[in-house]
This record gives sequence, C-alpha cells and structure tokens, in this order.
Amino acid sequence: MSAPTVAPTVAFDVFGTLADPASYALGLRPHTSEPEVIAASWRRYQLEISWLLTAAGRKLDWSTVTAQALDMALAATHVQLGEQQRAAALERVAVPELFEGVPEVLDELVGRGVRMAVFSNGDVGGLDRILAEHGIADRFEEVVGCSEVGAFKPAPETYRHLAARLEAPLEGIWLVSANPFDCAGAALVGMRVAQLASPASPKYPFAPEPELVLDGLAQLPEALPWE
Amino acid sequence: MSAPTVAPTVAFDVFGTLADPASYALGLRPHTSEPEVIAASWRRYQLEISWLLTAAGRKLDWSTVTAQALDMALAATHVQLGEQQRAAALERVAVPELFEGVPEVLDELVGRGVRMAVFSNGDVGGLDRILAEHGIADRFEEVVGCSEVGAFKPAPETYRHLAARLEAPLEGIWLVSANPFDCAGAALVGMRVAQLASPASPKYPFAPEPELVLDGLAQLPEALPWE
Repeated sequence: MSAPTVAPTVAFDVFGTLADPASYALGLRPHTSEPEVIAASWRRYQLEISWLLTAAGRKLDWSTVTAQALDMALAATHVQLGEQQRAAALERVAVPELFEGVPEVLDELVGRGVRMAVFSNGDVGGLDRILAEHGIADRFEEVVGCSEVGAFKPAPETYRHLAARLEAPLEGIWLVSANPFDCAGAALVGMRVAQLASPASPKYPFAPEPELVLDGLAQLPEALPWE
Repeated sequence: MSAPTVAPTVAFDVFGTLADPASYALGLRPHTSEPEVIAASWRRYQLEISWLLTAAGRKLDWSTVTAQALDMALAATHVQLGEQQRAAALERVAVPELFEGVPEVLDELVGRGVRMAVFSNGDVGGLDRILAEHGIADRFEEVVGCSEVGAFKPAPETYRHLAARLEAPLEGIWLVSANPFDCAGAALVGMRVAQLASPASPKYPFAPEPELVLDGLAQLPEALPWE
C-alpha cells in the first residue's frame, strides 16, 4: 500500500469560477430596466472580443476589452448610459463579489496542503485588487494574469505561461474553471481539468473531456486526488 | 483630370455574404418544431468553435466544425435527430441557397472588369461544389478556402494566404463580407473592407471601421471605387 504524498497544484480561474458574474448586472440595475439582458450580452461580447483578438493575434488589456464589450452590449440593446453611470458599472465589475463559501473552501484546501494560484484573463493589477479587497490574497502562491501574455485563454501560450510561473509541468497542474472554453483550452495542452459545470454548460467536442466535473467549488477538496 | 484605370480586386466571403444562412433552418424544418432557434444556435456555435480552435492553435475541417456545432446546438435545445436526419441537415448546409440576385451582381462586376475571388472559412472542395451547383464558378479567378491554412478567420495568416494566392498586396484587395468579425480581421491586416451590414450588425471597437458599409450586395458595383 502506498499512501499519496504529493499535494496537487491548482490554478483557479476567477470570473465565473471564484467571482460571481452577477456583478455585471448589479452595476447596471440602477440605470436600466433590463440589467440581466444587458449583463448577459456584456459577458458574451467580453468573451467574443477576447477570442477574436487572440485569433487575430492582437492584445488589449482586459479592462479595455471589458469596456468595449459594455459599449457593444449597450448598442445592441439601444440603452444609453451617462459617463458616470458607465464608469460605475465598470467599477462594479472590476471588484466582483465572490461566490458564497469561496474563502472557506480555499482555507480547507490550504489546510490540506494544496498549492494554489489564480489564473485569469484579467490584468494582474485588477486581480491583485480583487484578492486584496476580499482578503484572500494570502491563499495563493502566484497571481497569473493573461495581461502578462500577448493573448487570452484558450491560447496555448497562456497555459504555458502559467506552467512557467509555477515551475511545474502542464500535466502536473489542475485548472479549476466554470468556463467551458477555458477547460477545453487547458485540456488541449495536457493540463488536468476540474470543471464546475451546470446542465446548461456546453461541451466542446474538439477538446478532451474534463477529468472531474463538479457541481460547485465546495466539492473540490474531496474530489481532488493526491498522488 | 485622370480617369480611373485599375479595376479593383475583390474577395467575397461566402456564408452569410453570397449564401443565405436560412439553409441552416431549412434542413431542420422537417424534423423539429423550432428550426430557427436551433439554426441560430448552430451558426453561433460554428463561429464560436472556429474562433476557439484558432485561438487555441488547432485546426479542423470546416465540415467537422459544422457537424460539431450542430451537435452542440441540438444538445443545447434538447432535440435529438436520427442519423439520417442529421446527415440531411448537414447536406442541406453544404450547398446553401445563394441570396437573390447574386449571379446578376457577379455578372455586372465581371462586365466592369473587376477581378474576383471567393474567400471562405470553408473547405476548398465544399466551396467548389457550391459554386458548381449554382453555376457561378467561372466568375471567380480563385477559390481560396481556409482549409488551406492552419487557422480560420480572423487569423492574420488567412488574409495573408489570400493575398499570396492573388499575388496582390493586402492593401490592394477588397473584402466583401456580411460577417462583422471577418470585416474586423481584414481591416486589422490592412485590407479594404466593404461590409454588408444591417442595423443589428455589431461593430467591434478594436478594429478600424470598414471603408464601405452597404445594405446589400446589389449596391456593390456602384460603390466600389476604381483607382
């Protein structure tokens, strides 16, 4: 009998995984009658712009992508915001709420000796601010943002950059993400993937299936294997 | 006074530009109660997969992308098709109807001396078949498909491949497309762009605006400048 001795290394996606996308609607609520509709369009355009920029070999800061996506969502829904209202909506998204129970799950993982990093499309300064304002910065050994790379997820170089920052092979790192395109990109480069999935999450047939599919972050500590 | 003497070189996108996306719904109509809903989802996933593959540095044939996108759209709408029904829907999309008046506009452009190519995400064999079945193959000097390149639009190498095939500089080629992401990708590499746009067409703020914005293909012969 051999007892498992090596603690896993885990990289957490942020938007949609640790942080609640409800923030997109919250900042719009005071100014529009359909905050959820605009918020869904905003999030879609944010991803669409990031994919198109990466496919086109171009790079912008995540904050710029986020602002351009808001403008596209407003144009699509024929809603106009004043400059201050727009700035307030962007500020609201800059520091989103965490999902319920996130700090507790992170603490449990730290207690088990899991090595943890944040790995997001976001700009590093913005990520540091989110972690600081929620008081969870000290749970993570590294904060890796795609602003350090000339591309967004699912570009292979973003995952390779993560592995370089963690000084670990891709095959030795778990991605934990609720974003199916992120899970697909990680699986394609050989990372281990724990996807937080709902029945509505699309499955991309071009990528290997995730090794773990969980209903939520709370299941992670028990599900994560030691080797 | 100097008379314009150089006929423009024009590369036409196919799906949504010369060919009618209604084909996505037509092949589903006999088998489902919501063909338009599934068709819209199918088209979205087709683009999404092509962008994600390109961002991830992976390539599949367009026919495979199309089949995977149909399966995703069916899963998202909880509709099941038999193997023959699925094959029939894919076959229907393989040779879509042209928009009304397309052959006449192409003839007018040929008559004015415009040099024309087809330039699509599609597989070259599939494109040849579309042009042959509609009897318009002889209007085009080249048929350029992204199956010849390891990426889909808006990857810069797809536009550079087009320019190489046409032996013309990117700045000397017009892209005619109804797909905003295609117009964005072409503008980013310095092509001239005539976008077929509706009020609902999104504008991507990260790319230069198209030089021409037309309501439809019929406006192209008059709008296209000679230099």
